[in-house]
Amino acid sequence: MRDNKTDAGDFTLPGEAGYEELTLELADRWGADAIRDSDGTVLSDKILAADYDIYSTICLIRADNEWARAHRDKLQQNYLKSQPAVAESDRVEIDLLRGFFREQFAVNADDDPKKWWQVYDRTTGQEVPKDQWTFAADKGTVTVRQVRKWHTITVNFLAYRIWEAISMYNHITNNWDREHLMPIDPIHPEAQKFILDYLQKWLDEHPRTKIVRFTSLFYNFAWFWGDPSVQRFLYADWGSYEMTVSPRAMTLFAQSRGYEMTSEDFVNGGAYCSSHNVPSERLLAWMDFMNEFVVQFGRQCIDLVHAAGKVAYLFYDDHWVGAEPYGDRFKDLGFDGLIKCAFNAFEARLCAGVSGVRTKELRLHPYLFPTGLRGEPTFMPGGDPAGDARRFWADIRRGLLRAPVDRIGLGGYLHLVRDFTDFIEAIADIAHEFRALKRLHAEGPPHGAPLKVAVLTAWGALRSWVYVGHFIHGMELYEITESLAGLPIQVSFISFADILRAGIPQDVNVIINAGRSGSAWSGGELWKNEKIIEALTEWIADGGGFIGVGEPSACRHSSQFFQLAHLLGVDREIGLTLNRTKTAWTAAPGEHFILQDNQEEIDLGQVEGIYVLSREALVLAQKDGSPQIVLNSFGKGRAIYLSGFRYMPQNTRLLHRALCWAAQQTEFGAWTCSVSQADCAFFPASKKLVVINNGDQAAETQVRGADGKAIDVRLEAYAMEIIDW
Amino acid sequence: MRDNKTDAGDFTLPGEAGYEELTLELADRWGADAIRDSDGTVLSDKILAADYDIYSTICLIRADNEWARAHRDKLQQNYLKSQPAVAESDRVEIDLLRGFFREQFAVNADDDPKKWWQVYDRTTGQEVPKDQWTFAADKGTVTVRQVRKWHTITVNFLAYRIWEAISMYNHITNNWDREHLMPIDPIHPEAQKFILDYLQKWLDEHPRTKIVRFTSLFYNFAWFWGDPSVQRFLYADWGSYEMTVSPRAMTLFAQSRGYEMTSEDFVNGGAYCSSHNVPSERLLAWMDFMNEFVVQFGRQCIDLVHAAGKVAYLFYDDHWVGAEPYGDRFKDLGFDGLIKCAFNAFEARLCAGVSGVRTKELRLHPYLFPTGLRGEPTFMPGGDPAGDARRFWADIRRGLLRAPVDRIGLGGYLHLVRDFTDFIEAIADIAHEFRALKRLHAEGPPHGAPLKVAVLTAWGALRSWVYVGHFIHGMELYEITESLAGLPIQVSFISFADILRAGIPQDVNVIINAGRSGSAWSGGELWKNEKIIEALTEWIADGGGFIGVGEPSACRHSSQFFQLAHLLGVDREIGLTLNRTKTAWTAAPGEHFILQDNQEEIDLGQVEGIYVLSREALVLAQKDGSPQIVLNSFGKGRAIYLSGFRYMPQNTRLLHRALCWAAQQTEFGAWTCSVSQADCAFFPASKKLVVINNGDQAAETQVRGADGKAIDVRLEAYAMEIIDW
Repeated sequence: MRDNKTDAGDFTLPGEAGYEELTLELADRWGADAIRDSDGTVLSDKILAADYDIYSTICLIRADNEWARAHRDKLQQNYLKSQPAVAESDRVEIDLLRGFFREQFAVNADDDPKKWWQVYDRTTGQEVPKDQWTFAADKGTVTVRQVRKWHTITVNFLAYRIWEAISMYNHITNNWDREHLMPIDPIHPEAQKFILDYLQKWLDEHPRTKIVRFTSLFYNFAWFWGDPSVQRFLYADWGSYEMTVSPRAMTLFAQSRGYEMTSEDFVNGGAYCSSHNVPSERLLAWMDFMNEFVVQFGRQCIDLVHAAGKVAYLFYDDHWVGAEPYGDRFKDLGFDGLIKCAFNAFEARLCAGVSGVRTKELRLHPYLFPTGLRGEPTFMPGGDPAGDARRFWADIRRGLLRAPVDRIGLGGYLHLVRDFTDFIEAIADIAHEFRALKRLHAEGPPHGAPLKVAVLTAWGALRSWVYVGHFIHGMELYEITESLAGLPIQVSFISFADILRAGIPQDVNVIINAGRSGSAWSGGELWKNEKIIEALTEWIADGGGFIGVGEPSACRHSSQFFQLAHLLGVDREIGLTLNRTKTAWTAAPGEHFILQDNQEEIDLGQVEGIYVLSREALVLAQKDGSPQIVLNSFGKGRAIYLSGFRYMPQNTRLLHRALCWAAQQTEFGAWTCSVSQADCAFFPASKKLVVINNGDQAAETQVRGADGKAIDVRLEAYAMEIIDW
Repeated sequence: MRDNKTDAGDFTLPGEAGYEELTLELADRWGADAIRDSDGTVLSDKILAADYDIYSTICLIRADNEWARAHRDKLQQNYLKSQPAVAESDRVEIDLLRGFFREQFAVNADDDPKKWWQVYDRTTGQEVPKDQWTFAADKGTVTVRQVRKWHTITVNFLAYRIWEAISMYNHITNNWDREHLMPIDPIHPEAQKFILDYLQKWLDEHPRTKIVRFTSLFYNFAWFWGDPSVQRFLYADWGSYEMTVSPRAMTLFAQSRGYEMTSEDFVNGGAYCSSHNVPSERLLAWMDFMNEFVVQFGRQCIDLVHAAGKVAYLFYDDHWVGAEPYGDRFKDLGFDGLIKCAFNAFEARLCAGVSGVRTKELRLHPYLFPTGLRGEPTFMPGGDPAGDARRFWADIRRGLLRAPVDRIGLGGYLHLVRDFTDFIEAIADIAHEFRALKRLHAEGPPHGAPLKVAVLTAWGALRSWVYVGHFIHGMELYEITESLAGLPIQVSFISFADILRAGIPQDVNVIINAGRSGSAWSGGELWKNEKIIEALTEWIADGGGFIGVGEPSACRHSSQFFQLAHLLGVDREIGLTLNRTKTAWTAAPGEHFILQDNQEEIDLGQVEGIYVLSREALVLAQKDGSPQIVLNSFGKGRAIYLSGFRYMPQNTRLLHRALCWAAQQTEFGAWTCSVSQADCAFFPASKKLVVINNGDQAAETQVRGADGKAIDVRLEAYAMEIIDW
């Protein structure tokens, strides 16, 4: 362990054998206190012998291909839906793997297809009786008889995964020429025994390793690949459970929960179990079951690590399904640390907000790779890794201003940075700022408004801050969440089930519901539940605030499309009342509390067919005749409709003010910046004001304290100032 | 009757007392053979004595206000849905007429509310039991008890109409100061007797009248007005049956059809019975019942006209509901003529296509009023009635090139034209062209391609050519239909019920389905019927053609959104498969048969989320990455997806070629113009070629005959040439 110098520590460096001098030089320059290996790198004895904590990565389910080859019936599986086939007679033959990547999938002919598979008539949506089809294992086909001519037929079948997804991705992306690694399924007792034995042996063989970084546990997020001659990628979902399925798991589920899952519960007409969609009760039960298993067996692995005198960190990516950090059982895993790679503020908050681990670490971007995630040049000619690093950091820092993490670090091939001295300087600056912020938080939390927001989705806390992986621009809820991540307010995530179980939490001031109709984010059919409508209506009548974005509370049910139309003062024309003349309105002049500080034209995005329900609703902004911001009062409460949202400084300010208006807290100004490109936080315990410039241009801002004092601050692009108050 | 001079006749002139000289002068100038009165004009003895047929207008249900005043329980009625009220306790009081125009509606307290009304909890969509509410006739309110707090409650109640809608509109628009006319309901035997007596007396008192023009029969299209201090117009539908409802009619319906209609069948959650929406079986049964009544009683009226030695024409507007000219019973009414006002080609074809009447007449625009339908200046300073007339005529003429009507005419106040000599000349030119076209058609029909299109909607033939009144720009089906109206092909209209009953007609080459999801035009839930899918799939596999526009076959059912996705090669992402990677495509270069003649960028309009299903589908045009034209083959047949449609010359040509491609008739060129702004028709019997310029600029076009001969034609703006071939 290094000395705890003021500006050193809390930094994980990727070491690289063959570059020992560079490793140790940069460790010193950046103040690293830990050195890690990366995928494809090893640490040499010289590095191991230096005075640093050592991180080592391990991925248990693809760790030993020999065992996998010898136990092919213990490989991981998932359901696939065959390509649709139109029956041109009363008989149709279906090649199950047509269109899929045959190097990723192999049909599972071991478990009785008649028990585990289903054939569907997708014209009617009905299952074809099992006695009407036969499976030919030698050809990999299913022949369906007595079908209705011209109907579309598909087969839900089980496939083994014969190439582990992340390994496959790295292999193909980097043109590797290695053996295909296969994922084994720890649901089998034999696999469990093998994994535990393997881990024990690994621990014994890594005496210098202090931190065992799990990449991650057992099941990858869903990732189905296609026939590369047609289409490489078919389906991906960062949060969903398709790859946890097997006959054994389904049998255990039935024994445990008292009913059987079917293939269609997972295939779901080809929509699979996407996180974008409202989960069925059955899917939630499956997730709960698999989470229970992952935690129970994961704990056994972590216990071994602890028994070896080491600590265990979870890399929150890859095989993390079943180990959700915001799930109730996460703490039972016993992890010591969590590592989250981050580009944005919401990812920083996601990491910072996890409870149940001692150490939270952000893996910063760019990774030390020649190219970035989208193939753009990084550490190669044409790349600007220093600029990338400062830009990503500026976004992340907005989140860290409000909530701290414990460590930061990098990943990749260290030798690549040699020619980028400006990058080396940028990381030194970032590490310096990170440590300064961490120290301030350690002395006492920053000032925050007494305003608590609850984001209402079908998933609730389980998917706090992050929804389906990286920031999906255009998805209203991500755009909102990235804004929220930097605001001086409290943010929580609740589900419809939470409201049904316990009502709306007493301490919440404003509820946000944001997303498109039918999505898990808006809530879909969950809005048919009158108890939800009653609870929200009463809560708003009693003084609560509500912000609906896009298609909030949208669901085809009864006579309204927005089930909270009576609160929002708007609804959406979906073609059923075209002949109804809609209430005329004119946009109010832009002098409202919410629009103060707003210099530019408002463009939040648009939903077709939004109309105002009454003269009482106030249209605050419109575009091309379509309302963009509508305010409505109900009882003692307030509701705001936003037609969309795009994360940008002026909209973040608009949202901040909208939250205050909805919460009826319209004393705005203390500990805020006069320009929306800057943010600030006051740390009362330290009596320090931190001002940050989020933009790539210099900014001048005024900051007014709660004591009435105001100062002017000038900040260079991306700069941060710490000012004594 | 005037002499049948070559360029005279078949023209109806609105006469005006006090302007006898002008009336007779213009009758001569325009070749009129009939003179009519208009709303607010009378014909003087001098006009009546001249040698012209006399048209007189009559509207039986508002003809005698004295009788209406004396029989207020015989006024026409309809259901209204009260404004939604959110219950703030377990009791809510609802002012029934709040938000409605109290000069149009009066609550019907005569017929037992407990029998005829319904109260709904619109939060749940369930009816509130009748013992939980009471009606206070003195206050016009309903009080609902034991309601669920915070639920939204509405009342479906019956209202008398105390001001007839068209009279009300004219009164208010023209600031009249007359007694409010009230509509009586002929469903009552007393009203029938009164109407027949009144009509007999009227016939006796109008010896000079030859043609009795009914305006129209008994029931107005639906038109609900609002409290003018809030909102003048609430709901209007040119084709729907809300205003035919009464307890007596509902009682007769139950006796006749064996089950009872409910208020909610008409109120339908506030969507009422809009023509845009897929009609329920119950609504269709009601329409059939009322149509039967209107025809049966209407026939009694027309028999009186015939007995008086006169003829009866139907003005196809205002009170025409129940007398649909494309309904099976229309011929049973015994009308001698039909008059349709027209701006567009589809209206001309609508009129031309009616069977069961001897004489079909178009009422041309502009009407002789100071302002047009949208309040724009016409016969007043700033107006250009001559230009308007020529423009409207150019649109109408496209339709008349393909199918003839028998007469044309004008309406309004004749004295207004005095200062517009260019208008007088324009009408003379139009009358001249009209007669020339009529003569050609009389000699023998024009050449047409052996190509028959069937437009598939929920309504089928009943709403042939016209859907909800005037051209709704942006409604895909109107845009398509206006293009179809001028093409040298056969056009028919079929319903889903037609296909289920009799299959797809043998002589149809191409089926068009065009509209947004859920609409009557696209078909909504009718697409759930597997028999429809089977019939269309088989028909296309056997060589049929299909053109889907917008959201064809769209319906949430099973795993596809477009139920014909397997034929179209495209589907729409509605948010349920966001994580599925869609098939990549590149738009084919624009050299396809369909795109020949197309000079400009294609922009048909766009549907969000359209994606291609396979590599076999050919994207012919795209905009902003969204497919606009996609071709797909299936079996021996062909399908085309268009993302929208806008009526304009280049798109009309594109549609013409698309129809030919879908029909596999790709010998294109004989008897077509080389430029899309012009149209032509060859009349084999007369050996004449008619070429018209639809545009406001001169045009040069080549026309190639079937014999290979080609000629060049130059036409001034809006001109028509008749050329010997």
